[in-house]
Amino acid sequence: MLAATLSLAGGSCFGQSTDTFQPATTNVPGAEYPRIDAQRRVEFKIKAPDAKSVAVSLGGPSVPLTKGDDGTWTGTTEPIVVGFHYYSLIIDGVAVNDPGSHTFYGTGKDSSGIDIPEVGVDYYSRKNVPHGDVREHWYFSKVTGTWRRVFVYTPPDYDTNTSARYPVLYLQHGSGEDETGWSRQGDASLILDNLIAEGKAKPMIIVMANGYATKAGAKPVPAPAMPGMPAPAPGTPPRMMIPSAVDEEFTASLIPTIDATYRTIPNRANRAMAGLSMGSVQTMQITTAHLDTFGYIGAFSGISFTTVNLKTDFSGAFADADSFNKSGTVLFVGVGTTEFDRMLQGVHDFHKELVDAGVKHVYYESPGTAHEWLTWRRDLHEFAPLLFQQAAK
Amino acid sequence: MLAATLSLAGGSCFGQSTDTFQPATTNVPGAEYPRIDAQRRVEFKIKAPDAKSVAVSLGGPSVPLTKGDDGTWTGTTEPIVVGFHYYSLIIDGVAVNDPGSHTFYGTGKDSSGIDIPEVGVDYYSRKNVPHGDVREHWYFSKVTGTWRRVFVYTPPDYDTNTSARYPVLYLQHGSGEDETGWSRQGDASLILDNLIAEGKAKPMIIVMANGYATKAGAKPVPAPAMPGMPAPAPGTPPRMMIPSAVDEEFTASLIPTIDATYRTIPNRANRAMAGLSMGSVQTMQITTAHLDTFGYIGAFSGISFTTVNLKTDFSGAFADADSFNKSGTVLFVGVGTTEFDRMLQGVHDFHKELVDAGVKHVYYESPGTAHEWLTWRRDLHEFAPLLFQQAAK
Repeated sequence: MLAATLSLAGGSCFGQSTDTFQPATTNVPGAEYPRIDAQRRVEFKIKAPDAKSVAVSLGGPSVPLTKGDDGTWTGTTEPIVVGFHYYSLIIDGVAVNDPGSHTFYGTGKDSSGIDIPEVGVDYYSRKNVPHGDVREHWYFSKVTGTWRRVFVYTPPDYDTNTSARYPVLYLQHGSGEDETGWSRQGDASLILDNLIAEGKAKPMIIVMANGYATKAGAKPVPAPAMPGMPAPAPGTPPRMMIPSAVDEEFTASLIPTIDATYRTIPNRANRAMAGLSMGSVQTMQITTAHLDTFGYIGAFSGISFTTVNLKTDFSGAFADADSFNKSGTVLFVGVGTTEFDRMLQGVHDFHKELVDAGVKHVYYESPGTAHEWLTWRRDLHEFAPLLFQQAAK
Repeated sequence: MLAATLSLAGGSCFGQSTDTFQPATTNVPGAEYPRIDAQRRVEFKIKAPDAKSVAVSLGGPSVPLTKGDDGTWTGTTEPIVVGFHYYSLIIDGVAVNDPGSHTFYGTGKDSSGIDIPEVGVDYYSRKNVPHGDVREHWYFSKVTGTWRRVFVYTPPDYDTNTSARYPVLYLQHGSGEDETGWSRQGDASLILDNLIAEGKAKPMIIVMANGYATKAGAKPVPAPAMPGMPAPAPGTPPRMMIPSAVDEEFTASLIPTIDATYRTIPNRANRAMAGLSMGSVQTMQITTAHLDTFGYIGAFSGISFTTVNLKTDFSGAFADADSFNKSGTVLFVGVGTTEFDRMLQGVHDFHKELVDAGVKHVYYESPGTAHEWLTWRRDLHEFAPLLFQQAAK
């Protein structure tokens, strides 16, 4: 064992490479596969001499791999759309991780992921600019009765400019993801480092918290029926769940903790919230119920889980357009043009209703991207420059 | 898709549990398996209706799982030794991750891991004490010509006591691991939070860096022969590698970066280095070559990749016991009592040579633990209280 590690003692071993295919940046060190060519095709390779079938599931139909004489399975996809994608290898019917890939928490597990580069786009690249730190911070929540982990981006000058206070963006992940998502899959810190260096965004703190929370001691209740889903068969025991307490966790626990721990400017003119998908729905719910707390709202690919009524929903925040507009609250609504129909339609309908009602907002469509992280990187890149530039009243 | 996420919108779904088996703390949220009973047996479960065989590899011989009528494979291990273990599921001969487990970078990939609790031991538990942050920091190294990631633990009062400066412990991972290891598998931040709260360790910064580094522009050379390995067959192309530049990366790049970025006390009396396995060998090499830089040395399960000669090795640091002892340098040597023979013997021999030569040091054996993370958590728990308590001259 010791001998086997000798040549790895801090040096670097490596293998073949080709001019056309390059290992994905999301690979573990030394892994040559998966690898990507200039046409954005991805080649996979895994040794599985005893398997009957191996395929790759990377969104869309799975791509079968072909077995070679040495028991190694290989295959190449069609060109893949740019951006970050979760994926699995399917070995004899079981979806598993690719050992060549780092894992990223999504789809409710630590999943393989691959980032297909965008030629000529560098707003989420690591460049020679000052970089902020991303801090892992733990706090005890009296709301949930548990220790909770939160990641906090502090801007590049936070540690040197120690008398300065900063505005805060709360930035939420989607369903099946967690508080690691925005800094890993979302490259939030790189996007802000670059925007701040260019003078396009104000230095700000970003708080990336977990979007799952239940109240201490809460008991399970029957889950609400899912819209559009068939009723369960008679006699089926009800599906149980503990209701979400994310709103209370945010307002009574997380925000006071952040304001007490970091050098924030604790008022609505300097506090924003945004999220993606489930986190976007949470953002819409929490911010509109607390317009005295948040001056900036970012809804990335998610408005509501039910049909929207602008007059009565969202705590009535949009019931009177004039009143909302006078508040100076910045509302950003984004969606990818190739998201699934219901999402695309839902966000577009909401935008149209806002227009019809005269509610000021910024609407952004990410061209050619789906319900995936590149849509949300672009949203953040569009949204962050709008933040804390005007005084939300 | 949206409907399917409704009941997960920040609430909590859950399933069955038993009085005896509890889900591992290393599981992803909601995963009931793997689960552990009071006898430290572990039960695994995975759905794989088309697989021919499923087993668990958790150190020692793999444990076969048994297929049920519903295509689900289950099985329970014999009692497992306490502490953290990497493991794999073996599905039709391929080692893959368990989707129920979080992943931990080790064995050269993001691997499943399980923590078997120690009854009555809480020095690495999350307790109601002040917690430091663990920061992800990136810096550009002129030595390697690349951006490098480092994790930096800042003690609980770092952000409030802004005029204070702190001593620094550099803490290195092992082969096939990376800079995430000590805070995730090693619980380094929890160990220090608890020691600091009890007044048993001084508040300190811990720097957890990547132990792989090669010089910018370095060309591959034939790898050295591995001791104890048979010579390659005639005609075999030489195994190539790029030599390690970890020493230069530490002294010319990492340490100056840390001292310029964080509020350190930049002298040998306030600078320690420790590591495990490969990181321990690196620690021995780097500290002894730079005794003007480091006043404290922690060798956890690793001394050298070759037979030790105390008179000539380690830059001669131990050639003159009197001189070393007078320097006030604290040397800590640790090993687990069930580590593989060669490691156990090597560390014990080194300890004996130090005793025979009269070189002052602290020797610690972790009872009943192998070449695994619990040995190294215990080492850190023993080593940290020794740090920065005396003035290394």
